Amino acid sequence: MTTKAKIGILGASGYTGSELVRLLLAHPRADIALLTADRKAGQEMRDVFPQFSPYKLPKLVSLDGIGWSAVGLDLVFCALPHATTQKVVRQIFAEAPSAKVIDLSADFRLSDAASYARWYGHEHFAPELQKEAVYGLVEAYREEIKTARLVANPGCYTTTAELPLLPLLKAKAIEPDDIIIDAKSGMTGAGRAAKDAMVFSEVSEGFHAYGVGHHRHMAELDQEFSKAAGRNVVVTFTPHLLPMNRGILATIYVRCASGRTADDLHRLLAAAYGREPFVHVLPFGETPQTRHVRGSNFIFIGVAADRISGRAIIVSALDNLVKGASGQAIQNMNLMLGFPETMGLEQVALFP
Amino acid sequence: MTTKAKIGILGASGYTGSELVRLLLAHPRADIALLTADRKAGQEMRDVFPQFSPYKLPKLVSLDGIGWSAVGLDLVFCALPHATTQKVVRQIFAEAPSAKVIDLSADFRLSDAASYARWYGHEHFAPELQKEAVYGLVEAYREEIKTARLVANPGCYTTTAELPLLPLLKAKAIEPDDIIIDAKSGMTGAGRAAKDAMVFSEVSEGFHAYGVGHHRHMAELDQEFSKAAGRNVVVTFTPHLLPMNRGILATIYVRCASGRTADDLHRLLAAAYGREPFVHVLPFGETPQTRHVRGSNFIFIGVAADRISGRAIIVSALDNLVKGASGQAIQNMNLMLGFPETMGLEQVALFP
Amino acid sequence: MTTKAKIGILGASGYTGSELVRLLLAHPRADIALLTADRKAGQEMRDVFPQFSPYKLPKLVSLDGIGWSAVGLDLVFCALPHATTQKVVRQIFAEAPSAKVIDLSADFRLSDAASYARWYGHEHFAPELQKEAVYGLVEAYREEIKTARLVANPGCYTTTAELPLLPLLKAKAIEPDDIIIDAKSGMTGAGRAAKDAMVFSEVSEGFHAYGVGHHRHMAELDQEFSKAAGRNVVVTFTPHLLPMNRGILATIYVRCASGRTADDLHRLLAAAYGREPFVHVLPFGETPQTRHVRGSNFIFIGVAADRISGRAIIVSALDNLVKGASGQAIQNMNLMLGFPETMGLEQVALFP
Amino acid sequence: MTTKAKIGILGASGYTGSELVRLLLAHPRADIALLTADRKAGQEMRDVFPQFSPYKLPKLVSLDGIGWSAVGLDLVFCALPHATTQKVVRQIFAEAPSAKVIDLSADFRLSDAASYARWYGHEHFAPELQKEAVYGLVEAYREEIKTARLVANPGCYTTTAELPLLPLLKAKAIEPDDIIIDAKSGMTGAGRAAKDAMVFSEVSEGFHAYGVGHHRHMAELDQEFSKAAGRNVVVTFTPHLLPMNRGILATIYVRCASGRTADDLHRLLAAAYGREPFVHVLPFGETPQTRHVRGSNFIFIGVAADRISGRAIIVSALDNLVKGASGQAIQNMNLMLGFPETMGLEQVALFP
Repeated sequence: MTTKAKIGILGASGYTGSELVRLLLAHPRADIALLTADRKAGQEMRDVFPQFSPYKLPKLVSLDGIGWSAVGLDLVFCALPHATTQKVVRQIFAEAPSAKVIDLSADFRLSDAASYARWYGHEHFAPELQKEAVYGLVEAYREEIKTARLVANPGCYTTTAELPLLPLLKAKAIEPDDIIIDAKSGMTGAGRAAKDAMVFSEVSEGFHAYGVGHHRHMAELDQEFSKAAGRNVVVTFTPHLLPMNRGILATIYVRCASGRTADDLHRLLAAAYGREPFVHVLPFGETPQTRHVRGSNFIFIGVAADRISGRAIIVSALDNLVKGASGQAIQNMNLMLGFPETMGLEQVALFP
Repeated sequence: MTTKAKIGILGASGYTGSELVRLLLAHPRADIALLTADRKAGQEMRDVFPQFSPYKLPKLVSLDGIGWSAVGLDLVFCALPHATTQKVVRQIFAEAPSAKVIDLSADFRLSDAASYARWYGHEHFAPELQKEAVYGLVEAYREEIKTARLVANPGCYTTTAELPLLPLLKAKAIEPDDIIIDAKSGMTGAGRAAKDAMVFSEVSEGFHAYGVGHHRHMAELDQEFSKAAGRNVVVTFTPHLLPMNRGILATIYVRCASGRTADDLHRLLAAAYGREPFVHVLPFGETPQTRHVRGSNFIFIGVAADRISGRAIIVSALDNLVKGASGQAIQNMNLMLGFPETMGLEQVALFP
Repeated sequence: MTTKAKIGILGASGYTGSELVRLLLAHPRADIALLTADRKAGQEMRDVFPQFSPYKLPKLVSLDGIGWSAVGLDLVFCALPHATTQKVVRQIFAEAPSAKVIDLSADFRLSDAASYARWYGHEHFAPELQKEAVYGLVEAYREEIKTARLVANPGCYTTTAELPLLPLLKAKAIEPDDIIIDAKSGMTGAGRAAKDAMVFSEVSEGFHAYGVGHHRHMAELDQEFSKAAGRNVVVTFTPHLLPMNRGILATIYVRCASGRTADDLHRLLAAAYGREPFVHVLPFGETPQTRHVRGSNFIFIGVAADRISGRAIIVSALDNLVKGASGQAIQNMNLMLGFPETMGLEQVALFP
Repeated sequence: MTTKAKIGILGASGYTGSELVRLLLAHPRADIALLTADRKAGQEMRDVFPQFSPYKLPKLVSLDGIGWSAVGLDLVFCALPHATTQKVVRQIFAEAPSAKVIDLSADFRLSDAASYARWYGHEHFAPELQKEAVYGLVEAYREEIKTARLVANPGCYTTTAELPLLPLLKAKAIEPDDIIIDAKSGMTGAGRAAKDAMVFSEVSEGFHAYGVGHHRHMAELDQEFSKAAGRNVVVTFTPHLLPMNRGILATIYVRCASGRTADDLHRLLAAAYGREPFVHVLPFGETPQTRHVRGSNFIFIGVAADRISGRAIIVSALDNLVKGASGQAIQNMNLMLGFPETMGLEQVALFP
């Protein structure tokens, strides 16, 4: 019998935390050994997420006072609020050097110290780890992830935009100065914390943009797009909030490089992702719907020609809590622990 | 290596059909060998349900002209509109006597010929099969199902009401003449066929009752409640439509039998279902939410005392497409084919 | 030219407050002269409710330090959280004896001091005003309201249940000991304050009961039902939360008094409300939908026979923010200030 | 006492028809004298739209056999499916030359016969009327509308895009070759006819684009943008469907003309619409939400600077059934009949 890896989830009372639990409960090689949740410490997971009532899970504990050596975890998922992770990860590595960490916050996504400080308004608290961290977009960094100790799980918006655009930028198939990403997200992307703007009646039966012209996710996009293009790339990006729970859809407007057509872009993407287990490129001209990836680890990508010659419209859709967060994190875990990459991630989308 | 059972799904273009596909794709012993859909015959399943684009599935074919002997199915799920099933099942058994059938329509749920004729306005087309059919409420008829050739999968409303009430009626713990079932269902319960009343804007942001005072599901309730109580039982039942996709919640008002309390009812249910894999009884006083069973095969049941002494309020919740239809059907399949009862049904609820 | 009444709204940053503003902006005899909102004091109404951007409204001010005599209001709506109103109203009357007050909280709805203390856990802070307050269910207390100085606007759940049941209890047409009210409310009934359970993703795509067996609204129901029946009446009442914004629907199960039928109940209600401008009784056997009263001051009531002889099912629906709160409050205002009762309340329902 | 105009609504059983009824019931100078609905002829309006139960309205009749001279209407709203209107309008004018007509379909929006034929695949059936028709975008063609006999009410998507863009194109403040309109619409924009793709469960909890690269609304945009710019303008336009009832939001990406800034665009729009009763320009940097215009005749427009210098993001929002259809139609009616332009359109937005 194969042994199971001992897994900890820090911040289990949020949505990415509960989604990790949902997926790991069905993972044949994972044993959920530690769940933390500061405000809810002492409660059972079922008090916080009643869907887990029928399952046996460890009680929620506080992050303070955990002996990382004693608990002996093989891998820790950090699903903590921004900026709290940096010191925690340093402490984990100090006490339990053989543990591996996947961070779902934005804390380790930017590899450049100056860029981090500019976007977040303070110096990074663990700059040596910032340098070590591998950006966990599996389709782009698979080999680096396999040997990484610390992986920075990408953001949900950025995953939606990067998977279709990185191969096109690498192939110099589109104009890097003329990319517009109009992105729409379900409400779970905003987390579980009660804020006025997240109350049901403020959100349902309506739609709006936010962070117009300036949004922190841009830093991550800039980094990856520039790396792929081999030059500085700055895109236009507008996020919007949808009156629904799960799903991000990005409508991306690009101008083809000279001599390239929308059809070429489609062929490039189909070739780049032909063997990827979780990236599905639709037939040319078809575009995806968020509902058809709900609950699954898939991203669906479609490419269509604009009526203006030389322009293309790319539409990508994923479940922000799965491929956009916890599913991708488990995909990273599988690579880091030497498990088959798709293990525990085979669930079919739930529609309707 | 264990062999897989060859499975057919008749009526694969509806929601119970697609839900069977979703669950069977993850079932280690099932091989989906036949999918029929009359209006959509000739199309790929992905054209009808794009969430299946990444999977290999048989093309949709017409029901007409299938040679049941040649296709050699081990088990057939019928997810056809009401009244079409009766002749189809007779034909399947005629041509392929060793096949087993699970019918998800209402066609074989009533065992009494007169009752069927009264509620449906015509004589049953296969009365000999009507007699043979086993009512597929697993928790009540597990042993009969194991040896059945034809199982009538219970309705979604009725499963929600019967699982909490049958043990109480059998134990004579409640007054059989004073049961009120106020049931609320998500829209997938109404199926996929386009009707005026099912258009999004007719349904969203609103709520209403329907079939007030008279609804066909009552016949099924009458049959099972009367059998359990050992006397004629007629209940008050009102269905409502919720502006959401999945989930049924029944709020059930009962009067305790003399000497019994709400707490007794809770204890009875907890005892009756203590070892059931898919029936979860909440602590006394807690009541369930539909969202916490979404996508799973669980029914959650809660019992609370009313402020009026001697009365109790029972609340049950399930996913109408899973425990209320296709999940329960696969639970039946597992029994009929000798597989472990929970196989392929372990998926955790999807919340949020 | 007719003069306008000077109106104040205390607690204008909540939903009943904004709904008062919406309706009063279209009221030909009302001049909104004062808006308070403690946490938002100093802001413009458009910062808190952007739908009012095109309108000129007073700036939000703090309740503290208002000179009630100086502001010279004709009528004050109190839309404050429970228990804060009692002292405020006493102060208003002390400083501005000719002002009239309509309280939208539960503070003055119970006329019995002992009952108030039992349900709310403390003695009333203004018992002399508690005695003076008139219960503002217009259809039941129209004449008293016309001369009242202080009106307690009924609750939204209670209005939905009382309007169909009071005439039946008065006429002794139903059994007072066998009334079950299964009520379902949209989320605006829970107010605007951010709490964990009100976050969009916690609420959408799901349904649940709450306060099962015990809910504060029961006190108000007990009071009015008992008064109407001329004896003590205790009903079973279960509230539920719907994944939508506006609307309450109550499904009410009653047993007809000896010799009475469901049809009699319908005739009684049709007669009782034949001339009421905002109570609409549907043809016998038809039941209402919340969406068809959205945004209007109507309550729709339907009566159907149960299949169990001697029992009836009554369904009533209203918009909890209009007839269930602010619309009814303005109906009270019209009576108290001598305006036509329907003035400013003629808006047709917004469907879809 | 002022006389009322006799108004007919052809196609009263659809959503733009019912919205006309909602608004006209509150219009002091309108008398609804005729309602047609072919499939529902013979029914009462309350059977088709129960929200009108409390009101007295003419019975629905068939379009066939109406004697236009005899009914003596002052103005007819045509809310008929595309292409049916052309012959009906010709007949109305033939029999009742003094009648005025406002067409809410696309039939008369294109003034160029060749363009119509190209986009719709057939010659126009009433080319002489096509030439006569005035495009009913009030803010752009107010004077022409006042004297028009036939007005083509603009589309909902096009109104949302044209109101912010026309003044900028006229002022040559933006580059006409670099306009991207990413538009999102609520489901009522798709009408009331039952189609598979409009069933609640197909639409809720999800989001998708449609008509990517090619959509009939483009013809109308081309016509008006080109006229405003004084040169040929072809824009990129992608419509999407939102899981909600009412509201369109357009996120518009533009490049400022040389020497112009986003702030200049804002100032231009604020100046252009400073006196318009239904166009509200938000402070620079703020962007609108659909929920804040729901049920009202307002369009809200916001302008923000992109982080890429020289680019701006414009966001506009309206209620597709009001300013995007029936409200705008009544605004046209008011002009055509000499009523005050805002009459009957003062309703405040319904939020939440």
